[in-house]
Amino acid sequence: MTVKEKLAVHAAEVEKYLSECLKGQGIPYGLLESMDYSLLAGGKRLRPVLVLVWAQMLGAKKEAVMPFAASLEMIHTYSLIHDDLPAMDDDDLRRGKPSNHKKFGEATAILAGDGLLTEAFGFMAKADAPAEVVVEAISLMAHSAGACGMVGGQTVDMEYTGRDGITLDELKVMHAMKTGALILSACKSGAILAKGVGATEEDVRRAEEYGRLIGVAFQIVDDVLDVVGDEASLGKPVGSDEEQGKSTYPSLIGLEESKELARKYVDEAVELLAPYSGAEAELLSELAQYIVDRVY
Amino acid sequence: MTVKEKLAVHAAEVEKYLSECLKGQGIPYGLLESMDYSLLAGGKRLRPVLVLVWAQMLGAKKEAVMPFAASLEMIHTYSLIHDDLPAMDDDDLRRGKPSNHKKFGEATAILAGDGLLTEAFGFMAKADAPAEVVVEAISLMAHSAGACGMVGGQTVDMEYTGRDGITLDELKVMHAMKTGALILSACKSGAILAKGVGATEEDVRRAEEYGRLIGVAFQIVDDVLDVVGDEASLGKPVGSDEEQGKSTYPSLIGLEESKELARKYVDEAVELLAPYSGAEAELLSELAQYIVDRVY
Repeated sequence: MTVKEKLAVHAAEVEKYLSECLKGQGIPYGLLESMDYSLLAGGKRLRPVLVLVWAQMLGAKKEAVMPFAASLEMIHTYSLIHDDLPAMDDDDLRRGKPSNHKKFGEATAILAGDGLLTEAFGFMAKADAPAEVVVEAISLMAHSAGACGMVGGQTVDMEYTGRDGITLDELKVMHAMKTGALILSACKSGAILAKGVGATEEDVRRAEEYGRLIGVAFQIVDDVLDVVGDEASLGKPVGSDEEQGKSTYPSLIGLEESKELARKYVDEAVELLAPYSGAEAELLSELAQYIVDRVY
Repeated sequence: MTVKEKLAVHAAEVEKYLSECLKGQGIPYGLLESMDYSLLAGGKRLRPVLVLVWAQMLGAKKEAVMPFAASLEMIHTYSLIHDDLPAMDDDDLRRGKPSNHKKFGEATAILAGDGLLTEAFGFMAKADAPAEVVVEAISLMAHSAGACGMVGGQTVDMEYTGRDGITLDELKVMHAMKTGALILSACKSGAILAKGVGATEEDVRRAEEYGRLIGVAFQIVDDVLDVVGDEASLGKPVGSDEEQGKSTYPSLIGLEESKELARKYVDEAVELLAPYSGAEAELLSELAQYIVDRVY
């Protein structure tokens, strides 16, 4: 199987869980429809797959971590719904379909996002792992998705958009918050949840560093593909930077150096997997390679 | 001391914690300013005070539960910010000051709300209690604030606003979700967090029922005060129903019967406190009485 096929197998299991997890709980119909519309709109389910694969590689059972994995897709989805709002990026389309507020109206879209974000923490609490590690993983997710992470990164991006140009360091910090934090936390939370079945702090550190590196590589590659054309998108993070004049890796350090930098980060990510073996380790290695192979 | 003075003493401690808790963590300045603007805009801090008083009555230390208590004010505040947005109630003023989006713009207001909601779960995870009860309390809060609770109640309210009239049962369910769930969970989470220091499931049940009853009484009294005038508001919940023609307790069952119903619920709430003694039990009893005394 190719890496894309392997990812699709995991994504299909996430998809199945997502398609059922909000139903039958008493969510008012109109709100449920709006939440499911965006949650089930497709996508590669990269974040939950990273949770699952890291957790499974370190010994956890898929069923034990699936609710937590699903919560990352809820958070990713809420961020897309709110990001598309007229007051934000004002996007009418998302994955080829009307964006949530175009389909259901702004008020419902705001509430669908709020609902997904809140339910996400309820699903995190359902993880079948020792309570101490569940609390640790929840704390990580709140930090990564919150005002110092994804939400903060969005405000920094808005601030930078009004400026003439930004430095490479500013670009790095902004991306680390806006899109990197959630990818890092996907890997790290998978490892944390496996602590009850033997994962060590060293495993958690490797997961975090792997997540940080592929997150940066992912962003660089998306910037490169905005220049050279996208043949095999993994699904763009929030707010891809196609706007004219916006600072990107290629605009700041050049196309070739951007590609080399992405390759360097991916190589480092793969090295972190050295202690591990088996199907999951192989997939994480292939996934990292796949990110950067898209531009070569 | 009067009940108002006692409440103010507790509220001042909550206020002190809130005023410091978001600073120094690396939240981008513009976002922090917007979050703190609404979080520190005053109010009676009823929800965190209920967490603290229930937890302390059952043996927990104030410092141990303060982060969790503060999280309820963050959730309440985010709901007010999003509720005031142009696509929602379109309110220019909140507590006599410009609403968050009038002061900072819509995009920042949406993100400030998202940030407060996300950080709230991070603060819940900081509660100094056994991890099992922290997870239980987090799960409760996600349910109460989420799509089956506060967020869901808001969508139901929007749906009802477009209709000619609703039944008393519909009104009850809507309020139980929109404002009741968070008040109930304030009391219940305080009791849950005290399970590590001896609180029992029976204590948790009493806290939940007390919270449910004062939540309903609170809503009825607010409806009554919209008719007879408000001399001593406790701070209205989200979206007070002053709009002409909207169904309220007085419009559905009459003014006198509304007042009697609120009195009945408060009496039942006070009865639930029978097993307890001390300053906290007295305050919870006085607080319940105070809600309904406002209309007599």
